[in-house]
Amino acid sequence: MNAAPLDLASWSQARLDEVEAALERWVPADAPAGLGDAMRYAVLDGGKRLRPLLVLAAAEAVRGQPQAALRAACAVELIHAYSLVHDDMPCMDNDVLRRGKPTVHVQFGEAQALLAGDALQALAFELLLPGDDELPATVSARLCRLLAQAAGAQGMAGGQAIDLASVGLALDQAALEDMHRKKTGALLQASVLMGAASGVLDSRAHDALADYGAALGLAFQVVDDILDVVADSATLGKTAGKDAANDKPTFVSLMGLDAARAYAQSLIERAHAALQRSGLDDTRALAALARQVVQRSF
Amino acid sequence: MNAAPLDLASWSQARLDEVEAALERWVPADAPAGLGDAMRYAVLDGGKRLRPLLVLAAAEAVRGQPQAALRAACAVELIHAYSLVHDDMPCMDNDVLRRGKPTVHVQFGEAQALLAGDALQALAFELLLPGDDELPATVSARLCRLLAQAAGAQGMAGGQAIDLASVGLALDQAALEDMHRKKTGALLQASVLMGAASGVLDSRAHDALADYGAALGLAFQVVDDILDVVADSATLGKTAGKDAANDKPTFVSLMGLDAARAYAQSLIERAHAALQRSGLDDTRALAALARQVVQRSF
Repeated sequence: MNAAPLDLASWSQARLDEVEAALERWVPADAPAGLGDAMRYAVLDGGKRLRPLLVLAAAEAVRGQPQAALRAACAVELIHAYSLVHDDMPCMDNDVLRRGKPTVHVQFGEAQALLAGDALQALAFELLLPGDDELPATVSARLCRLLAQAAGAQGMAGGQAIDLASVGLALDQAALEDMHRKKTGALLQASVLMGAASGVLDSRAHDALADYGAALGLAFQVVDDILDVVADSATLGKTAGKDAANDKPTFVSLMGLDAARAYAQSLIERAHAALQRSGLDDTRALAALARQVVQRSF
Repeated sequence: MNAAPLDLASWSQARLDEVEAALERWVPADAPAGLGDAMRYAVLDGGKRLRPLLVLAAAEAVRGQPQAALRAACAVELIHAYSLVHDDMPCMDNDVLRRGKPTVHVQFGEAQALLAGDALQALAFELLLPGDDELPATVSARLCRLLAQAAGAQGMAGGQAIDLASVGLALDQAALEDMHRKKTGALLQASVLMGAASGVLDSRAHDALADYGAALGLAFQVVDDILDVVADSATLGKTAGKDAANDKPTFVSLMGLDAARAYAQSLIERAHAALQRSGLDDTRALAALARQVVQRSF
């Protein structure tokens, strides 16, 4: 199905250059009263850009329309960035360090952080609606729908509500997975499906990519829980050991470190199997991204 | 141009019944971990629903598609509701009373209020994207674009950032109007234009409705400033005298009470003149809504 193995580092670098340039262009410096500064600080800070890379990898697998894919890649990153800004606020996780820098509310104040998050969410939708026939309305509408569903009450925001309510509780694995499926999984899966929506695909390929996205999303969270235990703050660029300190249930606290690693590995195998049955020509970038997610934890 | 005068009270009641029923149906009770409760509390609380009424009045003026208009009416109300939830939070206006009830963060905690606002914003877009061919993609995309622009950094969120930055400053009238044009005017104008986008209209009618929306939006804020001075908290359903207490610039502090009333009246006359030149058949509801906005202040 796939040709020669792909050098993920160089594949990623070329796409990241494009994404960074687009974010630089599309996140407005001219938003009033310091709001633009806070928005740009939240976004243009050297995140790993996993979600944009998933969008672009899926778009390439379906030979999607490049401009739609680039807009989708930036839109999911804006939703991710807004969620981090709000999640770091004192009333939520009260975190002062993010990617090695002061969090937005530390740097700009809580009120500006709140507004910057709000404005980034709106901007994510604006990016998908350029309004000059650059994207067909059907594509814009499909991308907006996937994004809104992933961000909303049955997706990311709902998962965060479960997360808040679960502090100090002994969740079982099914409840923990439901939380993560919503909190981080929904947007990761939406990234894959939005990339796919930049092109045309049959229902077999769609369902396979949805399963790939679900498995990768869950693996990502299992790995995140592992890293919270085994890595230090400098490596993470955020405060390590936070989950245990906050008495939050994690895959490591539930199943132990070795079993969590084995589980992450099995999820990545499930993701690869989904790509195999997608029938798509070139899923090498998607496969390599899945491998990279789990390799972080070893 | 228009037929017999319209009884705004009965016109409004019929539309409000429809809007309330739709919001009841579309704001999910099943969002996890109490999030749905907080969202419904924020929305289903007997607001005046000016924005939905503007959407529906504009839709009737252009003979718009009723289902598109109803979805647009609810979507703008969700954006308005989310903005109130976030605006009331301790890091913003720190208000404990809204429409005579405890604010969302008082009732549900700050973290849940933050998430409820975030989820309501996403839900507003979801409502415009039903995804079952109920709305043509071109209409969905146009509605989403108007809403995102009005809510975002160059609209409501930007206006709030200016508001934050203006506390204690002596803004001149142009700066004050720029703030309000963004903070409240953008969404009020978008309400009119989204209603219009549910149908077909020529550029003369579009521009006239845009001017109507701009004039009404500004009048609304002038009246709000007047009410903050002359009404008591019981009448307002929120804390009166707040602007002066917070040392915020207002039209009353800038121009005095009488001149502010005269200015509001002149803006409503501008709104009516815009309707006259729109060339639309039946703008009676839009005209009556404009009159109602300014009558609150006398």
